[in-house]
Amino acid sequence: MAGKSIGIGLMGLGVVAGQVAMVLQEKADTLAEKAGCPLVLRRVKVLPEDLARPQAKKMPAGLLTTDDDEFFGERGIDIVVEAIGGENPAYEYLKRALSGGKHVVTSNKEVIAKHGVELLGLARKHGVGLQYEASVGGGIPLIAPFKHDLVANDISGIFAIINGTTNYILSRMAREGIDFAAALKQAQKLGYAEANPVNDIEGIDANYKLAIMATLAFQTRVRPEDIYREGISRIEARDFRYARELGFTIKLLAIAKQCDASIEARVHPVFIPSDSFLAKVEGVYNAIQVEGDLVGKVLFMGEGAGARPTSSAVIADIVSSARKIILGIGSVSTWKAASGKTIKPIDAIVTQYYVRLSAADRPGVLAQIATIFGNNKISISSAIQPESESRTKTAEIVIMTHPAREKAVQKALRELESLEAVKKIANCIRVEDIEGG
Amino acid sequence: MAGKSIGIGLMGLGVVAGQVAMVLQEKADTLAEKAGCPLVLRRVKVLPEDLARPQAKKMPAGLLTTDDDEFFGERGIDIVVEAIGGENPAYEYLKRALSGGKHVVTSNKEVIAKHGVELLGLARKHGVGLQYEASVGGGIPLIAPFKHDLVANDISGIFAIINGTTNYILSRMAREGIDFAAALKQAQKLGYAEANPVNDIEGIDANYKLAIMATLAFQTRVRPEDIYREGISRIEARDFRYARELGFTIKLLAIAKQCDASIEARVHPVFIPSDSFLAKVEGVYNAIQVEGDLVGKVLFMGEGAGARPTSSAVIADIVSSARKIILGIGSVSTWKAASGKTIKPIDAIVTQYYVRLSAADRPGVLAQIATIFGNNKISISSAIQPESESRTKTAEIVIMTHPAREKAVQKALRELESLEAVKKIANCIRVEDIEGG
Repeated sequence: MAGKSIGIGLMGLGVVAGQVAMVLQEKADTLAEKAGCPLVLRRVKVLPEDLARPQAKKMPAGLLTTDDDEFFGERGIDIVVEAIGGENPAYEYLKRALSGGKHVVTSNKEVIAKHGVELLGLARKHGVGLQYEASVGGGIPLIAPFKHDLVANDISGIFAIINGTTNYILSRMAREGIDFAAALKQAQKLGYAEANPVNDIEGIDANYKLAIMATLAFQTRVRPEDIYREGISRIEARDFRYARELGFTIKLLAIAKQCDASIEARVHPVFIPSDSFLAKVEGVYNAIQVEGDLVGKVLFMGEGAGARPTSSAVIADIVSSARKIILGIGSVSTWKAASGKTIKPIDAIVTQYYVRLSAADRPGVLAQIATIFGNNKISISSAIQPESESRTKTAEIVIMTHPAREKAVQKALRELESLEAVKKIANCIRVEDIEGG
Repeated sequence: MAGKSIGIGLMGLGVVAGQVAMVLQEKADTLAEKAGCPLVLRRVKVLPEDLARPQAKKMPAGLLTTDDDEFFGERGIDIVVEAIGGENPAYEYLKRALSGGKHVVTSNKEVIAKHGVELLGLARKHGVGLQYEASVGGGIPLIAPFKHDLVANDISGIFAIINGTTNYILSRMAREGIDFAAALKQAQKLGYAEANPVNDIEGIDANYKLAIMATLAFQTRVRPEDIYREGISRIEARDFRYARELGFTIKLLAIAKQCDASIEARVHPVFIPSDSFLAKVEGVYNAIQVEGDLVGKVLFMGEGAGARPTSSAVIADIVSSARKIILGIGSVSTWKAASGKTIKPIDAIVTQYYVRLSAADRPGVLAQIATIFGNNKISISSAIQPESESRTKTAEIVIMTHPAREKAVQKALRELESLEAVKKIANCIRVEDIEGG
């Protein structure tokens, strides 16, 4: 391949794109050796407002263009690297790149979660590769294991702390006993949460990432809207207190399980045993536990976001695309929908539940509550009444159930709410009896 | 590729080979889909004594052969899977397979640690692949990350709990306060340690695995004999007690670090902070923390041994070899020795030390000891004298040093030993100030 080089076209000039451009430049020699030939940045597609960014100033001026046609018309580009983020216009750009016979590397979780299967089909049709390792978990290898390393396994479960912002907030709440609002404010102050944190705290980001992993792991199309989703904003300091007393901690988990012919996929806060490995993952770290029939439990952990870790995955995908181009390989995706697997509705799942409610502090109330659980065929494993406030004659009651069907629990909660003695269902959190490492 | 199939020749019929054969059979359909064509077991090379094993009984009799020439003469074999273990005759078999133009998959850590670089060269020469993911860490992806996922990184450190037997023994000692001999006996009873445990407890197994990972990560040939090695048999229950009091636990770590132009590579017991992630890895689990300039810290954890996890990696390598054969790709190894990196001798490393010794219980002794440390330019961070036995007038003294050079510490220990007041240097354990996750 002497004399040849691979041309890169970069889309976007945010922190990730800027970092990718810098690494391509600074590590040009070692990357050329690893890829098999030099990787040359040929063009960078930016928005007019990007031109004022510090990253733009560091770029040779001739590389930058704000014009789509100019970018896609550049004949020297072999690999298009998309680091714009968001659904549009990235989605249109990816289709245009693939249709134009370019190999594509993307860090875009939203586009892959929503349109990944279609884009893989398009890549196959045009004989090019579509790589998206950076779309999930920053630099932690999470796509490659499903595509390659764990390929011999029937995957039975994925349990993932896959959003650093929420894990940071929950870690501080757990450690310091502070409330959600205070922890969020701290996270924002330190740059771990955005000014508008809704994508993180409502589990939308985790939802996209789970859709991508579950689609790969189970060879079944799992769309973001197929995944039940609940955020962390309802969790209070006292939920952590009770969790600890009961031997648990609270994490936002993205869970996907295969049972029989159906798949469970959900993102919500869970009680997990405090001696489990995932319980020990603190701060902005991500950790993904995968269970397979041969491999048993494997866990992958690291920084799940940030420009540098994300660039690690983007560059690895670029190198791998370059190697394929040199070897003359086009699309190698083997993704195919396995037939007959359906997504189980949340109503049908069976798990344990933690329920915290406030009720009138008088004899007989607990019996009324227990009766409702019993009528709905939900066994109670423990009921504690840790606090009562004499002024308002209100008692707090915490109930842990045995495994029960979600539908029955939701019905019981509605019935409890209508009881005169029950003032408020303060929280209901599912319990995931994940084993320790 | 309709009508075509890939032929597998299996060498060995131990538990791993038996498991691989079973998976190839039971998952034939899904593996064919993932590989791109059927994977057919064509021949199994066994020893005469293997014929009596239960695995042999399950195999179609026509597949088994005890004859080398018959096995290597079989034209239908595309991929040779070696699961014999040990250096010989496996090494000769691998050379013969590669020279005969067969792709090779092996789980053999000893052969790869000792001869991997040479065998990769042979594979390149004959245009075939050599894959060895199963040689390190069972089903945990530990070779692929260095070859692919982390390729953009300059790796600065590898910190690995890579031997399940020793981690099981140390976990029990930590938790139950029992002595090494008792913990070893328990491990043997449960099948976690062999009757002759020397390969595990003396760190030989970990040494091979570190040699493989370090060679890949640093693109420098790191031979088993380049790696300083110390086992765990000298650790006593009281070392765990002091470790805990000082905020540490004890693990057998395989450590490889890159600093300047040289590489540190060593396997020995270490004190690590008890709030670090590796400290929380218990029982037979393996965990490998890798540090790279872009990715930061990533951790891979899982069962590092056993037939099923190991078969997960072997089959993944078979599938990947098959995909390459179908695509017409030969050798893709990009391993190349990076110039100018040397292995630092253990004498030259700088770290902190825990030293436990027994000395005469009388005034002035601690001063004598401290003087020797001082003369060797070793700063003491703490010295405690937790126990003294009045009958023998012996005091136990525990010293923690600031970072010091190994050579100076060894010299100080020899001088201490020659002191009349010092009865015995009971232990000296290095401290690795690995950060928490």
